[in-house]
Amino acid sequence: MNERVYNFSAGPSMLPLSALERAGSEITNYRGSGMSVMEMSHRSKVFQQIFDETQEKLRRLMNVPDGYKILFLQTGASGQFSMIPLNLMGPNGKADYAVTGNFASIAAKEAAKYGTVNIAADTSDRNHSYIPTQEQLKLSPDASYFYYCANNTIYGTEWQYVPETGSVPLVCDMSSDILSRPVDVSKFGIVYAGAQKNMAPAGLTVVIIREDLAGHELPYTPLMMNYKTMIDKDSMYNTPPCWCIYMLGLTLDWVAEQGGVEGMEKLRTLRSSMLYDTLDNSRLFHCHAEKGSRSGMNVTFRTGNEELDAKFVQEAAAAGFTNLKGHRKTGGMRASIYNAMPVEGVEKLCDFIKAFDKNN
Amino acid sequence: MNERVYNFSAGPSMLPLSALERAGSEITNYRGSGMSVMEMSHRSKVFQQIFDETQEKLRRLMNVPDGYKILFLQTGASGQFSMIPLNLMGPNGKADYAVTGNFASIAAKEAAKYGTVNIAADTSDRNHSYIPTQEQLKLSPDASYFYYCANNTIYGTEWQYVPETGSVPLVCDMSSDILSRPVDVSKFGIVYAGAQKNMAPAGLTVVIIREDLAGHELPYTPLMMNYKTMIDKDSMYNTPPCWCIYMLGLTLDWVAEQGGVEGMEKLRTLRSSMLYDTLDNSRLFHCHAEKGSRSGMNVTFRTGNEELDAKFVQEAAAAGFTNLKGHRKTGGMRASIYNAMPVEGVEKLCDFIKAFDKNN
Repeated sequence: MNERVYNFSAGPSMLPLSALERAGSEITNYRGSGMSVMEMSHRSKVFQQIFDETQEKLRRLMNVPDGYKILFLQTGASGQFSMIPLNLMGPNGKADYAVTGNFASIAAKEAAKYGTVNIAADTSDRNHSYIPTQEQLKLSPDASYFYYCANNTIYGTEWQYVPETGSVPLVCDMSSDILSRPVDVSKFGIVYAGAQKNMAPAGLTVVIIREDLAGHELPYTPLMMNYKTMIDKDSMYNTPPCWCIYMLGLTLDWVAEQGGVEGMEKLRTLRSSMLYDTLDNSRLFHCHAEKGSRSGMNVTFRTGNEELDAKFVQEAAAAGFTNLKGHRKTGGMRASIYNAMPVEGVEKLCDFIKAFDKNN
Repeated sequence: MNERVYNFSAGPSMLPLSALERAGSEITNYRGSGMSVMEMSHRSKVFQQIFDETQEKLRRLMNVPDGYKILFLQTGASGQFSMIPLNLMGPNGKADYAVTGNFASIAAKEAAKYGTVNIAADTSDRNHSYIPTQEQLKLSPDASYFYYCANNTIYGTEWQYVPETGSVPLVCDMSSDILSRPVDVSKFGIVYAGAQKNMAPAGLTVVIIREDLAGHELPYTPLMMNYKTMIDKDSMYNTPPCWCIYMLGLTLDWVAEQGGVEGMEKLRTLRSSMLYDTLDNSRLFHCHAEKGSRSGMNVTFRTGNEELDAKFVQEAAAAGFTNLKGHRKTGGMRASIYNAMPVEGVEKLCDFIKAFDKNN
């Protein structure tokens, strides 16, 4: 097979072809510098320009207010699971966690190493097929922060509102839906995302932090997990993941060309409504997520028959739709339709679903 | 300038051109998979094969014995500065640190957060221009481990022997000289390296660990800093830095083609002896590192006149030799001549040095 496939992987996932082609065209010699971005000193002027421009592009696209710092870190969301309580919990502190999926659950367990965790919501009673309402949240007024995961990659649910927590800072894992819709960053204490779904190759974690939240870390906080140090050194305490930052910049150029986050939201609505409609109108397929809680990024569905699910995944792969197998926690299928998934890919998948539905 | 330059950066630094060209040729479609390595699910067969083969290539090239695990982690050497004491120090533990440069000094300070640090050697009395002898090391027989940095990037010194510490495990930062000479891994508890000098783009940290050393972490060890978890999950607890791992594999192919670490050692001896000879025979230039302690990777030198140093750096850059400015802690110049620096680059630099020496 010599053509590019429609890759429905939950992450790492598709990147804009224009970004990949641009990177390929300058991989041995970046714009006359005589070297690859992979070979540049992170302290060089040429790399500093890439770094600054990427930060600035993200600030513009997400409308990040003054008083917030954009950090380029590593170790994915799982690294943030520790970094957040280490820096925000405070001595003998307490934090609220809404557990709406696998990663929020791990985050809550990790936070319990460093303080008291109050489970503000837990949707495991219906296998995380829904998002709690504001009224259902059990909030602690004295919490150091409130933590939630905006989009649950495995279960295919997504928060359709920003929780109201008064003066308690909101901390949000947006790994799987960042840049897919407008977000009012000023409502948050921390927004963060592993880059490998909507932004860049794996190996970069973007953290947007209200600067006053840093500087209160627990004494045993590791050097590389100290937000204050990362803010003071502008993410260059040591060598950052330069190539991923560069790729993020190229992806952000593409996002801007498509009309920014508003453009991304239009595309996401187009893709997801087409797919949910197709599934809702089928005989065979059922969605895992409840209506009103459905994700615009990860569409989870199944036939209810494991053999038929396996047949679907196999035939889809043969037709050029890869990585449709669902996570073992939900079974069935999952189509991850992140920003870089062409609308055409979803149209073709819908046709495939209809044909499969008819023939089985 | 449209040609590639000779890049003497201390890191990130030159990569083999063949590796960059190969990566460029398959950047939008990896070997018929229909996707870039940057877009692949880390759980996919095609990426798992890249991962396994890269691990295996490194095991073969470095002759890593059974009982040792190769980990692909993140956050550079600075991440290891915390991870090592968190996992190896033990409760109320003690560790020996040989402070022969900037990064060993930071490592020792970081370790003091987690236990007692004994400074087994400190070469700051002569601005870290030498490496202590075995006899000069003040060893603690009850230390949990002995830590040193094999090559001091900033000062241009390098250990020419492996310390003898009896039953105390050796932990070594080889960030700037890994794969440049044969190493008997069986003598070590942990060997680790940030990849961005001799191995791959920034964003990958390679750790080779004797497996029995893991599993004794302090209770507040962050999830992503637990060696045991990383061993049990084969570095895939979460998404690893896939692109860097792939690039490492391509670099290792090149190392193998050049005769492996023995081949690298021949080249390193050729490059460094040529450069040191040129400097020793000059009128103007003096090396920072004392003979017997000189690095085969980072050659630090100066004229003793700051203006003349600046003129040298500027004229060298104009002639296509970039990043020769020394670190502020030593002043003067530094030529980093890692594995991927062509011998021709050093020959031409020597010619340039000779001409500069004659004309100034």
